[in-house]
Amino acid sequence: MAVYTHLSAGELVGFIGAYDVGALISAKGIAEGVSNSNWLVETTGSDVAGTRFVLTIYEHRTDASDLPFFLGLLDHLADRGCAVPRTIHDRQGNGWREIRGKAAALIEFLPGLSPDQPSAAQAHAAGAELARIHLESRGFAQTRANDLGPQWAHRTLSQCGAQALAAIDDGLPPMVEAAREIAGKWPEGLPASIIHSDLFPDNVLMLGEKVSGMIDFYFACNGAMAYDLAVTHAAWCFDTGGEAFNSANSAGLLAGYESVRPLACEERAALPLLARGATIRFIASRAQDWIETPADALVTRKDPMDFVRRHRFYCENGISAFA
Amino acid sequence: MAVYTHLSAGELVGFIGAYDVGALISAKGIAEGVSNSNWLVETTGSDVAGTRFVLTIYEHRTDASDLPFFLGLLDHLADRGCAVPRTIHDRQGNGWREIRGKAAALIEFLPGLSPDQPSAAQAHAAGAELARIHLESRGFAQTRANDLGPQWAHRTLSQCGAQALAAIDDGLPPMVEAAREIAGKWPEGLPASIIHSDLFPDNVLMLGEKVSGMIDFYFACNGAMAYDLAVTHAAWCFDTGGEAFNSANSAGLLAGYESVRPLACEERAALPLLARGATIRFIASRAQDWIETPADALVTRKDPMDFVRRHRFYCENGISAFA
Repeated sequence: MAVYTHLSAGELVGFIGAYDVGALISAKGIAEGVSNSNWLVETTGSDVAGTRFVLTIYEHRTDASDLPFFLGLLDHLADRGCAVPRTIHDRQGNGWREIRGKAAALIEFLPGLSPDQPSAAQAHAAGAELARIHLESRGFAQTRANDLGPQWAHRTLSQCGAQALAAIDDGLPPMVEAAREIAGKWPEGLPASIIHSDLFPDNVLMLGEKVSGMIDFYFACNGAMAYDLAVTHAAWCFDTGGEAFNSANSAGLLAGYESVRPLACEERAALPLLARGATIRFIASRAQDWIETPADALVTRKDPMDFVRRHRFYCENGISAFA
Repeated sequence: MAVYTHLSAGELVGFIGAYDVGALISAKGIAEGVSNSNWLVETTGSDVAGTRFVLTIYEHRTDASDLPFFLGLLDHLADRGCAVPRTIHDRQGNGWREIRGKAAALIEFLPGLSPDQPSAAQAHAAGAELARIHLESRGFAQTRANDLGPQWAHRTLSQCGAQALAAIDDGLPPMVEAAREIAGKWPEGLPASIIHSDLFPDNVLMLGEKVSGMIDFYFACNGAMAYDLAVTHAAWCFDTGGEAFNSANSAGLLAGYESVRPLACEERAALPLLARGATIRFIASRAQDWIETPADALVTRKDPMDFVRRHRFYCENGISAFA
């Protein structure tokens, strides 16, 4: 949530000048995204482009070699009517340019507000848009492996070590064994496509109950579509701490998804395990960040226990969590 | 440079709903201002207002009892054609409202980019706009004392103590005596008005060589107009470190100012001392912040020596710095 790279007015004017978007008239650093620098940019516009854009500079957490996949995917989906921002190409046709030795892209600005406490109707709309992305991305030619799958989660939690995990919370050490079990049982051969993998409410822009944009595709990869639905379920159907399950949002999300793409029998049956896998993925990354981030750092550490509670809920409720 | 207060989509919709500006369609936290939280807000607009605004929440550094002065001043100046953002009033006519127990205001958004390395032509334009503010604010009925005058600077540097100052840099302890000397010689009775007191290039928005907006009036107060010109001179006519004087910018700034409001003889004669007073004001606040901010904090401490070098330049060059 910060602007890491400072750009001067001259650098901004020079960068925007490479695009057919008119003259730069405003640029404000925005507190958006966890690991890249972003500006909300306004120009005088042109025949081919609007007047507002997000300029993103990719910092160390995003591998520039993945940009053809991420940015190409946005264009592929936008061309097919999905609510994702289009990549603006420069006059030479490049989807990104270099600035200060870092990759940087100009992305279409989309209106909308991210819901903090989404309603069931909003969960329904998000489910339908997620299914649309799954269907439309099947024709996308590029591939990208999931770096953060169940094997990764098991390895990461093992490497944290029981002692360091227990120092965060007594509920964490048993998650190493849970991750091992989940990785061992992980279903192969479920219907696959490109998945967003991180569709939390703060990555969805909404105008009322309508999705106006899905953003932050920087974890997108090939994977089981039902797993992406399970990630979204874990993200949209609980309070932040994972203490209260919201069955109305769960019903809304699933009905919305199935209004566009009905689940196959084996996908529905796999949801409890996939949802446990989703929680383990966030438990692992949060535990790792917690251990690597000093307690007095000014960045907020996210509590891995928020997802241990969700894991417990999915264990206890099985398929009835998706009724 | 941060968003200190987090607002939910619901809180933002509720806040904007109190104004006749149409429906909220976007809100992005922006990295602007050093001590308040700011959002760049977009609405569907109305007959009486535009579609883009800055929502500011006043954090602890701004005293809410000063808001009638700060916000009333913006309206007074905007009504008279000065390039400052207008305060938007809610349906009951209030210039600010409360949110999360803090005062918050909706301010007109102005286009433009702040120059990092302003040109002489840009300094000329800034000088002319500063003079316009001085002339037009003479009719403003409210008053506010300058909290950061030469007596304050002397007191603050004395309270830092020679040892703590020397720990920052050997060049700092002599500034206590310099501040005492400046406070003792401070000229009384110079032509006065409301002054901005902090018109650094990052508080001026420009489109090319034209000033599109002057912002961040949260140090504005009653004071000598020539002192405000001296502050602006120290801010616009050196490189950041205060090592290289830019005589073209100096000539541009002074000519621009005098194109709107010629200086009286006694004002011009006072400029060297007023400029020393301006540097002492920033030396004092930066030394105080330096001592109060831990070295490992993630906020950037500004080096007081940048202004000790300027102070030295003004001592050595006297009136010829303003030739």
